This record gives sequence, C-alpha cells and structure tokens, in this order.
Amino acid sequence: MTFIESLTAAWKTNNSLLCVGLDPDPAKFPAHLKDKPDAIFRFCSEIADATADLACTFKPQIAYFAARRAEDQLEALIAHIHEKHPGVPVILDAKRGDIGSTAEQYAIEAFERYRADAVTVNPYMGRDSVEPWLAYKGKGVILLCRTSNPGGSDLQFQRVGAGDTAIYELVAEKVAAEWNTTGQCALVVGATFPGEIARVRQIVGEMPLLVPGIGAQGGDIEATVMAGKTAAGSGLMINSSRAILYAGKGEDYAAAARKVALETRDAINRWR
Amino acid sequence: MTFIESLTAAWKTNNSLLCVGLDPDPAKFPAHLKDKPDAIFRFCSEIADATADLACTFKPQIAYFAARRAEDQLEALIAHIHEKHPGVPVILDAKRGDIGSTAEQYAIEAFERYRADAVTVNPYMGRDSVEPWLAYKGKGVILLCRTSNPGGSDLQFQRVGAGDTAIYELVAEKVAAEWNTTGQCALVVGATFPGEIARVRQIVGEMPLLVPGIGAQGGDIEATVMAGKTAAGSGLMINSSRAILYAGKGEDYAAAARKVALETRDAINRWR
Repeated sequence: MTFIESLTAAWKTNNSLLCVGLDPDPAKFPAHLKDKPDAIFRFCSEIADATADLACTFKPQIAYFAARRAEDQLEALIAHIHEKHPGVPVILDAKRGDIGSTAEQYAIEAFERYRADAVTVNPYMGRDSVEPWLAYKGKGVILLCRTSNPGGSDLQFQRVGAGDTAIYELVAEKVAAEWNTTGQCALVVGATFPGEIARVRQIVGEMPLLVPGIGAQGGDIEATVMAGKTAAGSGLMINSSRAILYAGKGEDYAAAARKVALETRDAINRWR
Repeated sequence: MTFIESLTAAWKTNNSLLCVGLDPDPAKFPAHLKDKPDAIFRFCSEIADATADLACTFKPQIAYFAARRAEDQLEALIAHIHEKHPGVPVILDAKRGDIGSTAEQYAIEAFERYRADAVTVNPYMGRDSVEPWLAYKGKGVILLCRTSNPGGSDLQFQRVGAGDTAIYELVAEKVAAEWNTTGQCALVVGATFPGEIARVRQIVGEMPLLVPGIGAQGGDIEATVMAGKTAAGSGLMINSSRAILYAGKGEDYAAAARKVALETRDAINRWR
C-alpha cells in the first residue's frame, strides 16, 4: 500500500484524524525510565502501543533522536510500529531540503534506513529538490507550506506577482498543479491560521494536510477542522505531541497519554 | 575564537577562499578503502590532511553519513579536523529548518554532538527558526539565500512587494538588517548566478558568502570571484566537493585531491 492508501485506511479504521507526534525529551520522562539506556525507545513505543487504535499516523521528530545519538532507537521504534501497528503509517519529521545527489542521500536515510512511510520536506530549493523523494514510489512527501510559528510570516506571507498571492499559496498551487504528478504529496499547514488552512484546502482539493499547532501552540480544534476538512469530513492529520506524550508523569504515563489521545480524537471528530 | 574570526584568519593564513566539501560516496572510493569499516572516516580525514593548508573551511555534508549509519565517523572526522587542523573551521552542511524546541535539538546535534563551528540553515520558517542557532554565541549560521539548482528559481526568484525585489534578495535584506544582530550570519549563494551574487554582495556588505556550484555544477570561477568578493578581495567560501574528492581513483587519491585543491585555490586567487 502507498502512504496515501494507508493513511486513508487508518482515517477510516481508527475513525481518527489524529497524528501522534513523537518528540521524546528525556528530561520529561517518568522517573522509572530515566536511567535506562533504551529509555527513548521504551517511552515512544509504549506511547505508540497505547494510542495506535486512536491515530491515523505517528510522527517521530528526528532532531530529538539525533541530539542524543539515538538513531538506533529511532530505527527500532519505526520497526516496532511497522510490526505491531501495520495499519498506522509513520511520518519521519525531518524537514530536509537539498538537491541532486545530496537529496538522494537524505531519501536513503528516511526511506531505506528508517523505513518511514512519509517524510516532511522544505520547498525553498524548488521542484528538483523534491524529485529524489518522489522517486520512491508510494512514499509520502509532505511539503512545508504555512508554518505555525510567528516567524512563518517572514517569507511565507510575502505577496508575489500582482500582489494577491502569498508565498504559501504559491507553494500550495505549485505542489497541487505541477509537483504532485504522482499523487504522493501532502502539505504542512499550521493550526494557528484557520483562514489560511481554508485557503490551502481551496487550492489543493483533496490533498492531505498535516496540521501541527493545536494544544501547546494554541491552535483551536474546531476552527482547524472546519477550515481544513474535505467534503467527506476527512483529509487532515492533526498533530499533537507534548499534550499526549507528557500527559502523565508517573509509571502510568502511557495510560494518561491514551486518555488525552482519545479526548483529542473525539474533540476533532465532533467537527467533521 | 568565533567562526567568523577563524574564517577570517584562515582566509589570510592559507591565502585561500576555497571550501573543501566532504560528500563521501563509498561507491567512488579507491579500491583499497572500500571494505574497511571506517572507510568514510579514513577517506575524508586523509582528504582533510592533504588539503588543510589550502582551505578556508571544510564542509562535511551530513546526508552522506546519515544514509550509511555513519554518524560516529562524522563525529570522529570533525574531532580529527579540530585536533590536527585547528585553524580551519568546520561547517556542518545540514540545511536544517525548524522551530522552537525542535530547532534547539538540531542545534544540540550540530554544535554539541558534532562540535561544528557553523551550520547551514533553511530560512523558510523565518526569524524565530534561526534564533535557537544564534543562541550559540560565536557559532556561524549560514542561511540559504539563492541556491544553484534550476528549481531554485521556483520560490527564490519570485518578486515580492512592489515587484522589484526577489525572495532571495528579501532573505539577504532580512538577514543583514534584522536577523544578524550578533554578527554570526552568512549566506549561501550559488555560483551559477554571478549577477545575483553581485546583488547579494551589494545588500549584505562584508558578510561572508558560501558559494557552491563551481566545477561539477558549471559555475565559473572568474565570474564568481568578480561578483562576490569584498573590497578587500575576500568574503567568500567557494565550495568544491566532487572535483577534489574524486580527482584520483587509486591509492594516491589524497595527493590527487591536493593537486586539484591547489589549482582551484590558485584559480580563485587570480581574480581577487
């Protein structure tokens, strides 16, 4: 199955638009895990086990692993999810962006080494920087479009051409009309700007949108779903990381994570 | 010493604007290295030893290491350069770009784990995505401005505002006027567009420019130096990777690399 097919199946099977973000920060781990050499793997895999029937995707953020020489634990985590929860595809959040043979190396890293189903990619270097990713047929390529941080406006909100198109809209247009020839693309659009989610949805039709920024970053679930859902009430991967991962501080942290994931999934479903 | 101070000293001591790019592809290694478990480290460190008095910077590209589970060899390589060639600063070419706590993790990866002196960063997510890097005082933060690939024009050449400023010029303006409050910034400007190198130089004054794209990508040395040099005949890190690394195919590959590095340095110096 392709990433898009797996995602579509997970939306349905788990009745969920929730993406569980795996951003493991050992400083926030429960005490009983802290000194374990494989603490990062154990923490993330237990969260995955506790939430797999509630999620449409898992999204490990590679920086949290790389900062701690824990690439082996990231490999083990993705292998664990593929084995135990084959219905939930894995997005490697890496925001890579480079050209030619270097982009090919990054694609080997994400798709062959880590065996991710999809990856996040930065569009600043243009179409030929995206092609080495698309060469992996069936894998998902999720391009940054409108990010949820204040500085996102520095470039993304600049008006181009006759002055009525913002850069983030141009990215959405280019991806939808030119880059997505193989149906592998999706876009990142932050939850802090519901009007812009709606605008992107209008441009890209049914293309899936990965939406970070609810919870800790202040994005509103109702506004996000209303703005971003497709006609069929789907089309979204709404990410929550910290609110789920660190819902509990004790040995029952996975159960606490499940409780918040369930509430979040249901809060999203209320507006579909 | 800060990155900028080390770079300035290396420009002078080695009489060189040459950046030696370390993009190790084992398929292109000489036969006697191919089966060695530390082939990547050995290849790159021997190239570094053979060219250290001819270079102003070394630039390992992290994707080539990550694609082969060779993070330990990248750590060893940078440690080797710091120990044997302390006068030549190391740029980690990673083109990272993320926000908040994730950007902090990437900065830990580059500056604490790998001990790089500078890093390449993607500006698409705006100013607050750059701040966690700038928090490491003295480290270099080299932002993508105008890249040397054909698709670079997809976004970077879009005209904004009243229509006379391209996105890459806006990035140069923002970095020079707003983001570079601590003097740590530099820019990436590809050698394939000398007119645009000149335009960026005009905007940013004395700020160092990292220029990929000579040699394999077709950029012209004379045009690059004439367009990009400062009034003092300096200000550039002109990168060459493959032409140097793979100059020889036999056991004398390091000597062959030195010969090409020397010719390239001198070809650059002719136009300063």
